[in-house]
Amino acid sequence: MKLGELAAVIGARLVGDADIDVVRVCAVADAGAGDVGFVGHAHHRVDARVCNASALIVDVDFAADCAHELPCASLAAERPSVALRLALQALHPRNAASAGVHASAVVADSATVSASAVVGAGAVVGARSVVHDGAVVGENVVLGPDVVVGVGARVGPGSVIGDDGFVFDDDGVAVAGVYGVVVGDDVWIGANVCVDRGLLRKTQLGRGTRVDNLVQIGHDVVLGEDVVVVAGVGISGYVTVGDGATIGGQAGINPHVRVARGVRVGGQAGVTNDVDEAFAVVAGTPAFAHHAWLKAMARLKHLDGLERRLRALEASTTKEKP
Amino acid sequence: MKLGELAAVIGARLVGDADIDVVRVCAVADAGAGDVGFVGHAHHRVDARVCNASALIVDVDFAADCAHELPCASLAAERPSVALRLALQALHPRNAASAGVHASAVVADSATVSASAVVGAGAVVGARSVVHDGAVVGENVVLGPDVVVGVGARVGPGSVIGDDGFVFDDDGVAVAGVYGVVVGDDVWIGANVCVDRGLLRKTQLGRGTRVDNLVQIGHDVVLGEDVVVVAGVGISGYVTVGDGATIGGQAGINPHVRVARGVRVGGQAGVTNDVDEAFAVVAGTPAFAHHAWLKAMARLKHLDGLERRLRALEASTTKEKP
Amino acid sequence: MKLGELAAVIGARLVGDADIDVVRVCAVADAGAGDVGFVGHAHHRVDARVCNASALIVDVDFAADCAHELPCASLAAERPSVALRLALQALHPRNAASAGVHASAVVADSATVSASAVVGAGAVVGARSVVHDGAVVGENVVLGPDVVVGVGARVGPGSVIGDDGFVFDDDGVAVAGVYGVVVGDDVWIGANVCVDRGLLRKTQLGRGTRVDNLVQIGHDVVLGEDVVVVAGVGISGYVTVGDGATIGGQAGINPHVRVARGVRVGGQAGVTNDVDEAFAVVAGTPAFAHHAWLKAMARLKHLDGLERRLRALEASTTKEKP
Repeated sequence: MKLGELAAVIGARLVGDADIDVVRVCAVADAGAGDVGFVGHAHHRVDARVCNASALIVDVDFAADCAHELPCASLAAERPSVALRLALQALHPRNAASAGVHASAVVADSATVSASAVVGAGAVVGARSVVHDGAVVGENVVLGPDVVVGVGARVGPGSVIGDDGFVFDDDGVAVAGVYGVVVGDDVWIGANVCVDRGLLRKTQLGRGTRVDNLVQIGHDVVLGEDVVVVAGVGISGYVTVGDGATIGGQAGINPHVRVARGVRVGGQAGVTNDVDEAFAVVAGTPAFAHHAWLKAMARLKHLDGLERRLRALEASTTKEKP
Repeated sequence: MKLGELAAVIGARLVGDADIDVVRVCAVADAGAGDVGFVGHAHHRVDARVCNASALIVDVDFAADCAHELPCASLAAERPSVALRLALQALHPRNAASAGVHASAVVADSATVSASAVVGAGAVVGARSVVHDGAVVGENVVLGPDVVVGVGARVGPGSVIGDDGFVFDDDGVAVAGVYGVVVGDDVWIGANVCVDRGLLRKTQLGRGTRVDNLVQIGHDVVLGEDVVVVAGVGISGYVTVGDGATIGGQAGINPHVRVARGVRVGGQAGVTNDVDEAFAVVAGTPAFAHHAWLKAMARLKHLDGLERRLRALEASTTKEKP
Repeated sequence: MKLGELAAVIGARLVGDADIDVVRVCAVADAGAGDVGFVGHAHHRVDARVCNASALIVDVDFAADCAHELPCASLAAERPSVALRLALQALHPRNAASAGVHASAVVADSATVSASAVVGAGAVVGARSVVHDGAVVGENVVLGPDVVVGVGARVGPGSVIGDDGFVFDDDGVAVAGVYGVVVGDDVWIGANVCVDRGLLRKTQLGRGTRVDNLVQIGHDVVLGEDVVVVAGVGISGYVTVGDGATIGGQAGINPHVRVARGVRVGGQAGVTNDVDEAFAVVAGTPAFAHHAWLKAMARLKHLDGLERRLRALEASTTKEKP
C-alpha cells in the first residue's frame, strides 16, 4: 500500500513521501524499509529518532514538536491508538474463522448453534445452550447448561462458562447453580476465564463488554454494557457493575458489591463496599478514592522517617518541660 | 408446591397464605407470582418492600421487624442461607450427571474409574490414577499420574490435577514431581484450578474441602478437612492448612507456611509466616491480625493529613525556641 | 542403592553406614527404613531429630552442629536443594513421555511438529506453528497461529499460547494480534497459563525461562533468559523483563514497564514504573525498594499508635501555650 493511501485510511496527516510502499505495522525498534512503526509510549519516542522504519504513526503533539527530527515519514493522528488499529486492519487483514462446529466438539442435543457461528476443537456446548450468529466459541471451551452466547460474541480458548458457583451458607460452602449465563452481543471473553451460572438470576455480561484472560466472574454477577475487566480479576457472587466501568488487573470485588457506571477500579484494588458515585476512581485494599490513595502511598514510603520525626519531637518536648 | 409445604421443608415460619402455589426461587427484584425471593443482603431488603414475589425467605429479625410491611408472604428462617439451599433443592431438583466415561475422554490403561463415577468430554485420566464411586471429573480436566479422586468428589472443568510442581533450588527452578495428589472424599474443586503433585509427599485435600475457580495449590501442600479456598488464591509448595480454615479470594501463602485450624485469611492477604493460633483472623501483606489491620487501613487513608499535623507541630515547636 | 553410592552421586558427605540400602526420597515426617528424608526448612529440623528415616539430606552447617544428634545417617551437602534434585533423579528416574502426536490432538496442516516432540491428548496446534525437537505440548493445550515451541521446551496442560491480546485504545478495548509467540529452547510453562500473541512484535520467552501455573503474559511481552515467573502473576502488554529476573507470585506489572536483569519483584507487588537498576529488589503496590517496604510495613502495623502519640503531643503543646 502507498503511504498516502494508508494516511487516508487511518485518518492521519502525512509528513513525507506519499509514494513510499509500506507492507506491515511493527514495533519501532524492529522496523525496516516498508514498515510502519507505532509511537505509543515514551519508550518508543527514544527509538523513533534512530529508527529504520519507512514511516511512524505518532500523535499530533509529538509530530508538531519532532516530525522534522525523525529519520522517516510520519503519520500524525489525533488518536494514534485508533490509527494503529485501522493500520493493522489495512495491512494485516484477518481471515474470519470458518463457520461450523469442529468434529471434535461435543454439542448437547438440546443446544442450538447458529450456522454462522464457530465452535472450536474440543469445545463442549451444554444442554439448552445457544450460540448465536457469528459467535466464536474457542478451542476446549466448556459451556455449561443454559448458556447464551450473543451475536458476534467471542469466548476464548479454555474458558468455562456456566459451571456451578461457589455459594457460602451457614453450613459451609455449597457448589450450586440454577440459572445460566447470558454473554451479550459483541462481548469478548479471553482465555481460561471462569463465569459461574446464577443461583437466583442469570449471570449476565452486557453488550460490548470485554473480559481479559484468567478472570473469575461469580454467580449472579451482572456486568453492564462496555465494561472492561482486565486479566486476573476476581468478581464475587451477586456483584453488579455499571456500564462502561473498568476493573483493573488482579482487582477483587467482594460479594454483593455494587459498582456504579463509569467507575475505574485500580489494579490489585480490593473493593469491599459499594462504589455509588458514577465515574469514581478507586484504588487500594480496602479501596478508596484513587487520588487519596496515591498520596497515602507516597507517604507510606516515608513512614519510617515520619516515626523518627515524631520521636524526636516527643524527646524535645519532654526535655523542655521543667 | 404449596407455600405451607415449602415452609415445612425448609424449616421456616410462614406468615401468609399456606395455599399459595410457588414454582421457583429467584432474585427478589425479578420475582413475580409463583416465585420465592431470597433476602440475603441489605440490598435485597430495599427490593423486598416493593417486590412482586409470592413469598420471601427472610431472617427472623427482619421478619419480626418488617413482615407486616412486606407486600407478600414471608418465610422466616433462623438460618436463611440454609433455608435457601433447601428451597432450591425442593423447587429446582438437579439431575445427577449420568455415570460413565465420555467417549472423547482418554483414560490410561493403568487407571481405575468407578462404574458410578462421571468422566466428562475431553478429560484425561493419567497412569495409576483412581476415580472413586460417585466422583465427577469435569470436561477437559487433566488428571496426571497417581491422582486419587475420592468418593463423591468433584473436579470442575478445565482443572489440572497432578501436574509437576514448580520447585526452587540453588540452580534455579526445576519442574518436578514424584508423588501424586489425593483429592479426599466429598471434596469439590472448581474450574481451571491447578493442584501440583508432590515432590516429597502426596499433595492432599482433606475430606469436604471446597476450592473455588482459578486457584493454584502447590506441590506437597496438605489442606485439612472442610477447608474453604476462594477464587484466585495461590498456595505455595509445602504449605499446610488446618481443618476448617478459610482462605479469602486472591490471598497468597508463602512456601512452607503452616496455617492452624479454623484460621481465616482475608482476601488478597499475603501470608508470609506461620499462623499458629487456631481461629486467628489475619489480613494484609505481610499478613497480621485482622482487627489491627483494619485500624491501620483506616489511618492509612489519612496519612497525608497526619504528616501535615506533624509538620505543623515541628514548626510551632521550633518557633517557641529562642 | 547403597547409601555410599547415593552420597557420591549427589555430592554429599556421608556420616553413617555406607552399606545401608535406600529406595526412595520423601518427607522427613513420613520417612521409614529405606527412605531418605530432606531437611530443607526449619520445620524439618524439628522432625529430623525424631525421624525413622535411614538417612537425611542436610546442609553442611546443620550437619556440623547436629549430625551426631540425629537418629540416622546424614548426607551433608553444600547446596542441599541441588543434592535433593540429584537424589530424586537417582532414586526416582522419570520415563520420558513417548514422542508423538496423540490421536485426539488437532494439528493444523500448515503446522510442523518434530518427530521427537510430544503433543498430548486434546491439544490444538495452530496454523504455521512449529513444535521443535523434544518439546512437550501438554494435554488440552491450545497453541494459536504462528507459535514456536523451542527445543526441549514444555507447555503444561490447559495452557493457551498465542491467543489474541487485550489491547486498549481510545475507543475501548480491541482484542487483536498479528505476530505470534516464541517460546524459547528449554522454557517450561506451567498449567492453565495464557501467553498472548504480539500486536507489533512477537511475544517472546527467552531460553531457560520458567513460568508457573495460572500466569498471564500479555501481547508483545519480551521475557529474557532464565526469568522465573511464579504462579498467579499478571504481566501486561509491551512489558520487557531482563535475564534472570524473578517475578514473585501474584505480582502484576503495568503495560510498557521495563524490568532490568536480575531484578526480584516481591509476591503480590504491583510494578507501575520501570525498574532500571539491575538486581534491584522491589515490593508493594506501587512497588518500591524492598528494604524500605519492609520498614514501612512494620510501621504500618503501629499506625494507630503513632496517631495517638501525635495527638498526645498536639494536646500537650497546645496546653503549654498561654
